[in-house]
Amino acid sequence: MKVCEVISVGTELLMGQIADTDAQAIGRLLPELGIAHYHRQTVGDNLDRLVGALQLALSRSDVVITIGGLGPTEDDLTREAIAAALGVSLETDEQFAQVLRRMFATRNLPWVDSQFRQAQRPAGAKFLDNPNGSAPGLWCRRGSQVIVAMPGPPGEFMPMLSGPVRERLIREFGGAETLHSRILRVCGLGESVVEDRLRDLLSSTNPTIAPYAKPGEVHLRLTARGDASLLDPLVAEVRRRLGDSVFGEGDETLELVVLALTRERGWKLGVAESLTGGLVGARLTSVPGASDTFAGGIIAYTPSQKSSLLGIPVELLRAEGLVSSASAEAMAHGCREKLGVEMAIATTGNAGPTADVDGKPVGLTYVSVSTPHGTHVEEFKFRGTRDGNRTRAAQAALTLAYRVLRG
Amino acid sequence: MKVCEVISVGTELLMGQIADTDAQAIGRLLPELGIAHYHRQTVGDNLDRLVGALQLALSRSDVVITIGGLGPTEDDLTREAIAAALGVSLETDEQFAQVLRRMFATRNLPWVDSQFRQAQRPAGAKFLDNPNGSAPGLWCRRGSQVIVAMPGPPGEFMPMLSGPVRERLIREFGGAETLHSRILRVCGLGESVVEDRLRDLLSSTNPTIAPYAKPGEVHLRLTARGDASLLDPLVAEVRRRLGDSVFGEGDETLELVVLALTRERGWKLGVAESLTGGLVGARLTSVPGASDTFAGGIIAYTPSQKSSLLGIPVELLRAEGLVSSASAEAMAHGCREKLGVEMAIATTGNAGPTADVDGKPVGLTYVSVSTPHGTHVEEFKFRGTRDGNRTRAAQAALTLAYRVLRG
Repeated sequence: MKVCEVISVGTELLMGQIADTDAQAIGRLLPELGIAHYHRQTVGDNLDRLVGALQLALSRSDVVITIGGLGPTEDDLTREAIAAALGVSLETDEQFAQVLRRMFATRNLPWVDSQFRQAQRPAGAKFLDNPNGSAPGLWCRRGSQVIVAMPGPPGEFMPMLSGPVRERLIREFGGAETLHSRILRVCGLGESVVEDRLRDLLSSTNPTIAPYAKPGEVHLRLTARGDASLLDPLVAEVRRRLGDSVFGEGDETLELVVLALTRERGWKLGVAESLTGGLVGARLTSVPGASDTFAGGIIAYTPSQKSSLLGIPVELLRAEGLVSSASAEAMAHGCREKLGVEMAIATTGNAGPTADVDGKPVGLTYVSVSTPHGTHVEEFKFRGTRDGNRTRAAQAALTLAYRVLRG
Repeated sequence: MKVCEVISVGTELLMGQIADTDAQAIGRLLPELGIAHYHRQTVGDNLDRLVGALQLALSRSDVVITIGGLGPTEDDLTREAIAAALGVSLETDEQFAQVLRRMFATRNLPWVDSQFRQAQRPAGAKFLDNPNGSAPGLWCRRGSQVIVAMPGPPGEFMPMLSGPVRERLIREFGGAETLHSRILRVCGLGESVVEDRLRDLLSSTNPTIAPYAKPGEVHLRLTARGDASLLDPLVAEVRRRLGDSVFGEGDETLELVVLALTRERGWKLGVAESLTGGLVGARLTSVPGASDTFAGGIIAYTPSQKSSLLGIPVELLRAEGLVSSASAEAMAHGCREKLGVEMAIATTGNAGPTADVDGKPVGLTYVSVSTPHGTHVEEFKFRGTRDGNRTRAAQAALTLAYRVLRG
């Protein structure tokens, strides 16, 4: 089995200013490729220490992946460090330098000459295309080993990892005893309830099941060594025990499934958001092609907007309070009328950090879903930060929509 | 200056199952203590590799902090590894073993004999009290060096770090030369332009400036060694050169600053979102107390919602297209009228992944801001993923709002 080592580069990582989500993504990918992963190093923007880290990694690993330090500025040192560790010179690719210059011109971005640093590469290295930024990645071979350098911004890193880098790694370093994984996504059940229902299955060694908790969801990673078809009976058994709480597989997000089920019914969907302020709409519209089913929404953040935009009677708001099950239902119902859609999702609550004007406690939240068959409402008492409560409210609203659509 | 190195222990870290928030917390703490931090290593639950990591760290650092691997189970190997790296035996503290047994009895937790592993320590090491769990930390001295072992669960790790470990580190290793940092946040200028304007300042050694890029922002970390007042003239000089592009300091987000400037004018703010689908509203309402200034918004995702909810003439949409500067302006203007607010932010564009019905290219985006003094619009051609384009569009919209408010 080939061995991969990750080197995360950046003083901001050592200073704790950002989380190393890129390294996490590599960690999740490697088992699936049948590549072992024993060490990760994190170093700052310092040439000597970066060269040292590369030399150590080359002394014990087949594949070395560096993250970051490929930008145009003077503290972007990964190109120099790889050249030094491999004992080769750094060359400028004149053709790519022209591509870079044109890219900046087309996008109306101001050019400074330090951008040319991104057209440099250690002698013999190949560029990896970066459709989401200006710094390309590098594929640097030394005998049977390779150093793969990727840019740090997750929006550039993630597509490069899951696309060309993944493919080349499989082709050149992937193991025969490949690990095959499937992820089942569960909503509406806590992690301990899921574990309880699957207890005997959790001790299985091939395939294995590993649960991990996400806000308002539990993801189950089922992994088989060698033979992918081992997974089918286990997936069936988990689905049998958890029923419709398993809402999707792999990359199927809750918002994607809600849109698909709404589309199946030939309905249009709208949102009326108070405490979530647009989070539910943002999640639904993150799905490509959402516009054939998602019509739009109303962010009604103040009492007067709730009555003027959603047509909720002022007396109702006054009698029941803004944060109440009656208000949530009226928001969902009003949204259907105002937008002319069959289904609407509404949220209202107090996200914190302080009790609101009505004196409703922090975390008290109502979500409602209205369809031609009726209107549903649920109450929650969240206990997190403002951000956490808002995220959970959006998740709770989509979960209720999913359950209503499942009947 | 003394040097600290962190070793994060756990196969779950290498597998990417959890984020290493503990290591991040150490990273944020050390500069404040005047302790340098050049390397972090991450290793799995493997005795040989953990011993190797410890030996490497002891060869180059004064303080080595390990995270994790102190629990009762067989893959908790940090105690054994430290004893091996220091060349001492592992001893059981009989008195603490009895404390452990009583702790389990008091809390009605089931006892298994492997719990006794938590009463072991390398000869000469001192326990660090853990009020939030059963595994104590360890303070293991070797000459002028120390290995500090802490439990991994953040609920146990964080209080131990910010309490006893922080105090001892200051006493024994803290520098007179404490580091003081301030962050300046910049929008509307690319990283290379910022660097160009600050080029001569970037080579300063005390205080230092380090730029790092975020989507649509550049953050500048200014760090002074010893005397915090060294930062004031540098902050003033950076602000002089970058002007209003410096929108905030420290934790001040762009949405917070936009709300504050709108509030200063006594205005109310609304949003009209198409491709961002609620992202701008979600960012604005993430700010505590947003409701005194943010009134609400309209997510107009389909042509018919744009005309029915925002009152945009169908002819205009037909003549100019949904993704056009005229549509963006009409959305911002319509939002002000429908919501009765002084200021509105609008977004329209094609986020991808495919060209839209009008044949407008992926990434083409217009953002508009309308106030009683006029309506502004800006065009962008983004080249990222759907998510990336939406995030950048929301950022561009807030940046335009900031610039309009700054006049």
